Amino acid sequence: MATHKLLLLPGDGIGPEVMAEVKRLIGWLNAKGLASFETEEGLVGGSAYDAHGASISEADMAKAKAADAIIFGAVGGPKWDGVPYEVRPEAGLLRLRKDLGLFANLRPAVCYPALADASSLKREIVEGLDIMIVRELTGGVYFGEPKTITDLGNGQKRAVDTQVYDTYEIERIARVAFDLARKRRNKVTSMEKRNVMKSGVLWNEVVTAVHNREYKDVTLEHQLADSGGMNLVKYPKMFDVIVTDNLFGDMLSDIAAMLTGSLGMLPSASLGEVDAKTHKRRALYEPVHGSAPDIAGKGLANPIAMLTSFGMALRYSFDLGALADKLDAAIAAVLASGLRTADIKAEGTTPASTTQMGEAIIKELEKLTA
Amino acid sequence: MATHKLLLLPGDGIGPEVMAEVKRLIGWLNAKGLASFETEEGLVGGSAYDAHGASISEADMAKAKAADAIIFGAVGGPKWDGVPYEVRPEAGLLRLRKDLGLFANLRPAVCYPALADASSLKREIVEGLDIMIVRELTGGVYFGEPKTITDLGNGQKRAVDTQVYDTYEIERIARVAFDLARKRRNKVTSMEKRNVMKSGVLWNEVVTAVHNREYKDVTLEHQLADSGGMNLVKYPKMFDVIVTDNLFGDMLSDIAAMLTGSLGMLPSASLGEVDAKTHKRRALYEPVHGSAPDIAGKGLANPIAMLTSFGMALRYSFDLGALADKLDAAIAAVLASGLRTADIKAEGTTPASTTQMGEAIIKELEKLTA
Ligand SMILES: [Mg+2]
Ligand SMILES: [Mg+2]
Repeated sequence: MATHKLLLLPGDGIGPEVMAEVKRLIGWLNAKGLASFETEEGLVGGSAYDAHGASISEADMAKAKAADAIIFGAVGGPKWDGVPYEVRPEAGLLRLRKDLGLFANLRPAVCYPALADASSLKREIVEGLDIMIVRELTGGVYFGEPKTITDLGNGQKRAVDTQVYDTYEIERIARVAFDLARKRRNKVTSMEKRNVMKSGVLWNEVVTAVHNREYKDVTLEHQLADSGGMNLVKYPKMFDVIVTDNLFGDMLSDIAAMLTGSLGMLPSASLGEVDAKTHKRRALYEPVHGSAPDIAGKGLANPIAMLTSFGMALRYSFDLGALADKLDAAIAAVLASGLRTADIKAEGTTPASTTQMGEAIIKELEKLTA
Repeated sequence: MATHKLLLLPGDGIGPEVMAEVKRLIGWLNAKGLASFETEEGLVGGSAYDAHGASISEADMAKAKAADAIIFGAVGGPKWDGVPYEVRPEAGLLRLRKDLGLFANLRPAVCYPALADASSLKREIVEGLDIMIVRELTGGVYFGEPKTITDLGNGQKRAVDTQVYDTYEIERIARVAFDLARKRRNKVTSMEKRNVMKSGVLWNEVVTAVHNREYKDVTLEHQLADSGGMNLVKYPKMFDVIVTDNLFGDMLSDIAAMLTGSLGMLPSASLGEVDAKTHKRRALYEPVHGSAPDIAGKGLANPIAMLTSFGMALRYSFDLGALADKLDAAIAAVLASGLRTADIKAEGTTPASTTQMGEAIIKELEKLTA
């Protein structure tokens, strides 16, 4: 069995608590011989600043580059509100994304039947929802230059942001989406605003060309991003994989997350290029939720998003999809049994701490892998 | 009583049918002495192209400039798919917006209790919803220069769009939002992405300054556009007036429309500057729905969005808010009685044609104004 090298970066707030449940799971998988992981640990965010005066140390960056995958908790909190901008907690995550070239952000929106009533949408619209939003993460209007505010005099200023996309950036994100679709329901919906944006015209053209050249077996459709957003709210189950740019992906992935009724349950992955030497794809996995400093250290945090983020690592970095499926099934079973952390509590359910939830999931996994 | 000059531009598809119900209402208002309107009529879109070879004639543009308000139906249809780009049906609307300087797009999202079940959201989330999205319409990334696709060689192209906002553009749209809030529930939520866009930084700064200088009596809050989109889906009733830029407004107004469950019911207004001479604000009113060529000429179209667009003209161009309130009440009463055009039919309701719906609304209005 191949041994996989993981770098665990718990971060701040509830990060260490939810990461503890990943460590428990890794320990169990190793002990059972279901997988073989070697782990190292590092500091990121406020905890790295407190230790090293940087949001991530050079030593930990080196470990990140050497790892097969990074499992990331969460960063930030009021304690570090006053630190200099370039060493603020978020800078550690941004540096990881940039230095590892993590251009593809995968944001699954999955609605567990046991939690469908927590959604603002009707149960029949969202129950069993399982879509994947692939957001371009390193280009577009958040990074393009010029990006300026100029004083024009007379009390007038002019602000400029620049959306820039090159063919290769669109090609590589399109391939990520098509590859994902092949392992799912084989459909990709590409979204842009080609009717009013030149980047939308190029996006549409390049995605279509990649499809024609390499992915004829996958169904491709195009939607304008605004009517795509409408469809996401009205008929979310029409989608399998959605691929879109950084800005539209920022909006649409959050709206899709909201449909599921449980932001605290959602994982994400950020993928880079396949390394020419190792043939491995750079990857970082993290929950969508933040560091929740208000509940840190109280055993109240929901570890499910962190555990499903590790599940994405099993699936996308280590080709352990069958094991990831079992982890998902174990989580669904625990939720169906009525166990709930505070964020998802409802009438008639049983309260659980972070640890109790993590232990219950492993217990279910034990049954499913027996 | 002041006489108001209207230019009616029915356009294509179902445009003339729904405009016929506005004409019926205007005739009734004039006859009852409840208001005094003079109307002229013009061509726009495909019908203008068929008559003049342009998407709007110079004569009709002159009428538009002379009118106190423009009531616009809808444009486009497969018949004109092959016409040159610069005379395509949509170009008529874009010319009107540009030449009249219609920088503020008002998109109310109202959920009629009788139609709440048509929403994909739960009844309690959307019933009685009444929010107003104010979208900047003539600036931002859809219009800024450079806007180019460049061939870089080696099969690579680069697409560029430019988001540009000047202080005065943000000031004037902010004022529209604050003025609207004063006549509603006195709250404005401004949305941008100041964490990653310079235009978001300036937007936030200018809206805050306008608030401090001129609108201290209105409650102002700021949300990042992506988490604002989440809140729109999760807790839409937290909002009164939302003000945002062209691109975010494009996304968010459509998502808000979807919440109501009835895109075919929603009106819009596009407002320009107050004219220094006449002290009147340039204005165009149009339904959010399109020309629906597939059902044109069959008496199936729902005239409510066109009638409520005219209702917005009563409210925002002619200070006839009390009359607009009665029109809204008449529509709600007709819907509550179970009358439905085909697009909003449901079990146990009574089918109505375009004309029958228009007549029923006037009959209710007759009662309410008696
Ligand atoms: Mg976002
Ligand atoms: Mg739109």
